[in-house]
Amino acid sequence: MSDAFSSLPDFDAACAAQAAAHLDTLTKPPGSLGRLEPLAVQLAGIRGEPFPRVSPPGVLVFAADHGIAAEDVSAFPQSVTAQMVANFVAGGAAINVFARQIGARLEVIDVGVAGAVSGVVDEKVRAGTANFAVEDAMTRGEAMQAIGVGQRAAERAVEAGCRSLIVGEMGIANTTASSALLAVLTGRPVAELVGRGTGIDDAGLARKRAVIEAAIAARAPDADDPLGVLASLGGLEIAAMAGAFLEGAARRVPLLVDGFIATVAALLACRLAPELRGYLIFAHRSHETGHGAALAALEASPLLDLELRLGEGSGAALAFALLEAACRMLSEMASFETAGISAGPA
Amino acid sequence: MSDAFSSLPDFDAACAAQAAAHLDTLTKPPGSLGRLEPLAVQLAGIRGEPFPRVSPPGVLVFAADHGIAAEDVSAFPQSVTAQMVANFVAGGAAINVFARQIGARLEVIDVGVAGAVSGVVDEKVRAGTANFAVEDAMTRGEAMQAIGVGQRAAERAVEAGCRSLIVGEMGIANTTASSALLAVLTGRPVAELVGRGTGIDDAGLARKRAVIEAAIAARAPDADDPLGVLASLGGLEIAAMAGAFLEGAARRVPLLVDGFIATVAALLACRLAPELRGYLIFAHRSHETGHGAALAALEASPLLDLELRLGEGSGAALAFALLEAACRMLSEMASFETAGISAGPA
Repeated sequence: MSDAFSSLPDFDAACAAQAAAHLDTLTKPPGSLGRLEPLAVQLAGIRGEPFPRVSPPGVLVFAADHGIAAEDVSAFPQSVTAQMVANFVAGGAAINVFARQIGARLEVIDVGVAGAVSGVVDEKVRAGTANFAVEDAMTRGEAMQAIGVGQRAAERAVEAGCRSLIVGEMGIANTTASSALLAVLTGRPVAELVGRGTGIDDAGLARKRAVIEAAIAARAPDADDPLGVLASLGGLEIAAMAGAFLEGAARRVPLLVDGFIATVAALLACRLAPELRGYLIFAHRSHETGHGAALAALEASPLLDLELRLGEGSGAALAFALLEAACRMLSEMASFETAGISAGPA
Repeated sequence: MSDAFSSLPDFDAACAAQAAAHLDTLTKPPGSLGRLEPLAVQLAGIRGEPFPRVSPPGVLVFAADHGIAAEDVSAFPQSVTAQMVANFVAGGAAINVFARQIGARLEVIDVGVAGAVSGVVDEKVRAGTANFAVEDAMTRGEAMQAIGVGQRAAERAVEAGCRSLIVGEMGIANTTASSALLAVLTGRPVAELVGRGTGIDDAGLARKRAVIEAAIAARAPDADDPLGVLASLGGLEIAAMAGAFLEGAARRVPLLVDGFIATVAALLACRLAPELRGYLIFAHRSHETGHGAALAALEASPLLDLELRLGEGSGAALAFALLEAACRMLSEMASFETAGISAGPA
């Protein structure tokens, strides 16, 4: 495992330029394949290959609980985290279905589920974070451990042959932790960043906002110390996602960022290692309230907008076909010259 | 081949309702899979199956030339239509690449290419339309023949086992014909509907607009006679696309509508048989200027927005994975009950 905090490989500008030049020889008006074109160029630069390959993808689903769930901020009780993990293991969740569709290797990692779960990669750092309304979610050491869990998961996926990573999560109340992290990291008001998660009502939304505002005031994390912010507010699966992004980039693997939680994890990871940004591909614009702000902080424009608000990596798995299409466009399309088409645009 | 103009089967409301009810038992917060959910319901109603299947898809690419190309309205010369058809036959175009990715049956149909082409389904009605700046693009009889070409192509695809259809096109100057059709069918000003096609410059754009305005004034087609509008302005491939949509619906096959040209063909077909609308799934929001107006006329909101402006059915092929995902969601996801997850949303 590399020391991902300090040294990410440079984006391969030469391969990216080679891919960009090749694109303009292909049998289509220049630029007419829209966002697939810069995507293909980015993939070439990430992989360090003028004709990159991204299959098979690896899906990593990190699961953990949040002490803040005790503040009644979620539509679902905390026990659902473990129940959904069992569902991932049995293959019945949305991410399982979409991962099978794209031929992905899927791994479910317990970074900190409160209850006992089986059939997963057991990397439980602690049985859920502490309630950050009352105390720090975890120690700095635990945050580092959870980042390491994500780094090892990315390492396993790449060593198993995965050429791209889809990073998902499960954790009841994790939109609460994510909104809090986002407010501190961006300095924006909590009210702009708090949404309904999996479906709380108006009263729940008001409570969630008040809980986060009070907790940030009480914990008073320092925005210039991202690891401290993470330890203060959680969560364990968010830390692991950040670690998976960092290790994936260290291994030149394109990283598909799912929705709100994943984007906050990506933002945190970029604060730890800004070079990470070039390795990130934003998959889906979530309807969760804070996602727009998280995307803006990363100057990101996702590929899809399908009104999803599930998490698990589901939006990233759905976007994967576009990465595959971008690669195939580069490697399989004929050029004007080989196809014997004499006329370019006037 | 059914008489598609008069009798399309009813959308199966019972199957659609059964799919909708099943969705709310699955292990996800209600509605959290966003647009995939109504898409799955629509597919169930189209197919008349509560657990619909859409694979394998069939791709139909209709090619034809346009006499209006003589007015210098395109960035490419007319000969490129035949050259691109040869590229489709050789497997080197974008639609070939994306069709292979989704395991589609692909057929290229010559409805009216000006030059000789080989290796295609030869259904040439005439060697390109007449120049509608000077005379009607074709006769009503030829328009009916071209619609029949599309109907037969859809019939072949469905009889070969295709469970969904992607309808694409190739025809230099066909954004000009489409913009003219759209202006007449919607009554909106030409200036709002004319764009750069595959890449004309500002002078070309002004010329294209003037040509269309003068031609509509000269031909004076009656908007309440859609077949007459089609005969007056063209094109042969647009007529065939309309026919493929009508026959696909008659056979309960979901129809993926690509970009600008395909949407205008769909609008025309809906004027011939309004019940068609329920069978259409809009794949991609093109950056071609008139597409927004065409979509608005059909109250359609496409699944993807990737800044494509290529045609060929490329955007529809890229969206196909979402139809497949919607079907798999219905048939493969566990329910809260079977997964032993006790808690629904509060």
